Amino acid sequence: MKKISIIGSTGSIGRQSLDVVRSNTDKFKVTAISGNENTELLFEQAREFMPELVAIYSEKHALEFNEKIRRDPELRGIEIMTGLEGLKAVAAHSDSSMLITAVVGMIGLVPTIEAIKKGKDIALSNKETMVAGGEIVSRLSGSMGARIIPVDSEHSAIFQCLNGEEKESVEKLILTASGGPFRGRTSQELMKVSKADALRHPNWEMGRKITIDSATLMNKGLEVIEARWLFGIDADRIDVIVHPQSIIHSMVEFKDKSVIAQLGNPDMRMPIQYALTYPQRKEGKGIESLDLVKVGSLTFEKPDCETFPCLKLAYEVLRLGGTYAVALNAANEVLVEQFLNDRIGFYDIPRYIEKTLERHSSIEEPGIEDILAADTWAREFVKQQIAI
Amino acid sequence: MKKISIIGSTGSIGRQSLDVVRSNTDKFKVTAISGNENTELLFEQAREFMPELVAIYSEKHALEFNEKIRRDPELRGIEIMTGLEGLKAVAAHSDSSMLITAVVGMIGLVPTIEAIKKGKDIALSNKETMVAGGEIVSRLSGSMGARIIPVDSEHSAIFQCLNGEEKESVEKLILTASGGPFRGRTSQELMKVSKADALRHPNWEMGRKITIDSATLMNKGLEVIEARWLFGIDADRIDVIVHPQSIIHSMVEFKDKSVIAQLGNPDMRMPIQYALTYPQRKEGKGIESLDLVKVGSLTFEKPDCETFPCLKLAYEVLRLGGTYAVALNAANEVLVEQFLNDRIGFYDIPRYIEKTLERHSSIEEPGIEDILAADTWAREFVKQQIAI
Repeated sequence: MKKISIIGSTGSIGRQSLDVVRSNTDKFKVTAISGNENTELLFEQAREFMPELVAIYSEKHALEFNEKIRRDPELRGIEIMTGLEGLKAVAAHSDSSMLITAVVGMIGLVPTIEAIKKGKDIALSNKETMVAGGEIVSRLSGSMGARIIPVDSEHSAIFQCLNGEEKESVEKLILTASGGPFRGRTSQELMKVSKADALRHPNWEMGRKITIDSATLMNKGLEVIEARWLFGIDADRIDVIVHPQSIIHSMVEFKDKSVIAQLGNPDMRMPIQYALTYPQRKEGKGIESLDLVKVGSLTFEKPDCETFPCLKLAYEVLRLGGTYAVALNAANEVLVEQFLNDRIGFYDIPRYIEKTLERHSSIEEPGIEDILAADTWAREFVKQQIAI
Repeated sequence: MKKISIIGSTGSIGRQSLDVVRSNTDKFKVTAISGNENTELLFEQAREFMPELVAIYSEKHALEFNEKIRRDPELRGIEIMTGLEGLKAVAAHSDSSMLITAVVGMIGLVPTIEAIKKGKDIALSNKETMVAGGEIVSRLSGSMGARIIPVDSEHSAIFQCLNGEEKESVEKLILTASGGPFRGRTSQELMKVSKADALRHPNWEMGRKITIDSATLMNKGLEVIEARWLFGIDADRIDVIVHPQSIIHSMVEFKDKSVIAQLGNPDMRMPIQYALTYPQRKEGKGIESLDLVKVGSLTFEKPDCETFPCLKLAYEVLRLGGTYAVALNAANEVLVEQFLNDRIGFYDIPRYIEKTLERHSSIEEPGIEDILAADTWAREFVKQQIAI
């Protein structure tokens, strides 16, 4: 029985992680979970999975949750914590051997580092952990013997393609991108797109932040940065190819020109389960088998970096190093939120990120404090710029 | 330095194997080769690679070859042998650790078994070895610790996809088929096709026998049988999918519904080199990197087993077991030869194979003698039937 903590259990990946646990109650037990606003769902999850610890980020929601739980005699034993301390306690929970980092945003970094320090394996769905903290996290996980198993479908694909292969044999990583809802549009057209247009993703049902990142191609940019640190491969050996059907989840080209690819229907439960059962594979209950005859055709295009400058910016920060990736990520997080609030336009996202990078004072080989400071600075800077 | 014997060095796979050796003279040395009619090329190969032993199947060609070689002072030391004894001597040559079985047809079986008995690894390009002798060969290679590494692009793909995976995790093997030159034709149209039509393969440049097998889909049928023995997977878990671009060379679906595929440009030097360097991968000199944007689109269809009955026959002999696969293979070999001689029509191939199977007295758990007897019987039977 593998014991698991989940931070972000009420989000998209968190809920699907619990689906996988639900289909495999003989293999997995959830010992600690965390959520924030959706206390209703968190309560249901607590009742179903009976964790020892539940963390709720805000005090206010924690109080609501506490009231509910105290009314149910079976749940009274559950410990409740709040704030970053709560998240860290869930992540580092002594009765779990694996953490699923399912929260979105920079908030995932510190708790994940806590779990790595305890030598726990990480099923990582939080891009920002590697985007902002890639250098530290990969160094620390190496020294602690903690495995970082990506949950993102692209990185899980690459992780699977590298199975049984030597790192020296890798020629390049090839990340596939759906191209998002605006593939094929001109920049002229994109000037006027709305939040609703951007939220209509063709293949994957995902959280709102990631869906916007997918529309700007920043999602793929963050994945390139993540791949650089997860697999220790330089950016000039990481390619992005647009593949609108999202059936090939990513590929690895080896030195002998052989390409290994991982394919499947778009179903996040597949990479989640793989991360949970790795190095084994278990029956994919409820996951539909891929029927390529039904799919009919897989197509490929070059990504359009002129119309979607965010992808280029991601390569740029990898070239620059230091805390530039932190600044890019923080600025993007604020800007996407403001785009979702109808406060800025689609192209304001890359425009203000570029401004942020121009003004950023990067720190080489940053420590965790430097990363958090760069993150705070970039958020403040970009907020000032757009005057909110 | 890995020392290698090649049987069938003047054929298509043999020549490409020597290309790989030529590009990696620091890694490989050829110690014994064999050929038959093309003594001119065999002589050039002997001069370039300076093997210790050369075998020529027919006495007549051996005499020709001998005369040539005696005129060249540098080559006088090369030993020459003939007949099946010669092939066996090349295969089991004491100064090589790997045999490349590059001959076409049943003739490959006995020498390959000789090499396995010496514990040599086999780079296997000869389908018939596994089609006819699969049960014996896999048992013997297991007990001798000899690895059988497939060179066929489809089986090499599956072999690569299984890297680092457990056999129990496999749900099914998915062999891709180009569909051959007659894909999409009706049986009415195929009644009248000529040898020249059938020899026009869309993607691969191959020997004549295999090209005809590709047109009838018997090639894929033989590959299904081969896969059954190479990977120890029952026929009902081996699927065939038509993929006209031949870019995905084959796939494995695992129990978690994750599919791993191997892709590349159609270039046999890739699987040949992989077999030679396995478990490592080395620089693929001269092999073109796959550009999926250039390829643009990969398509998939169901194979048409009504129009191409040979594929169905192959599944049928796997279901029947015993020596039925031997009979199918032997009959097919004779029939393809007669089709290439313009003696029979396209549909006479499946028709006479079916007759052969109807009349075959199969032997369960056959020994090598039973296999050779079944082979001889089927050849004689089919020759009688078509009265040659």
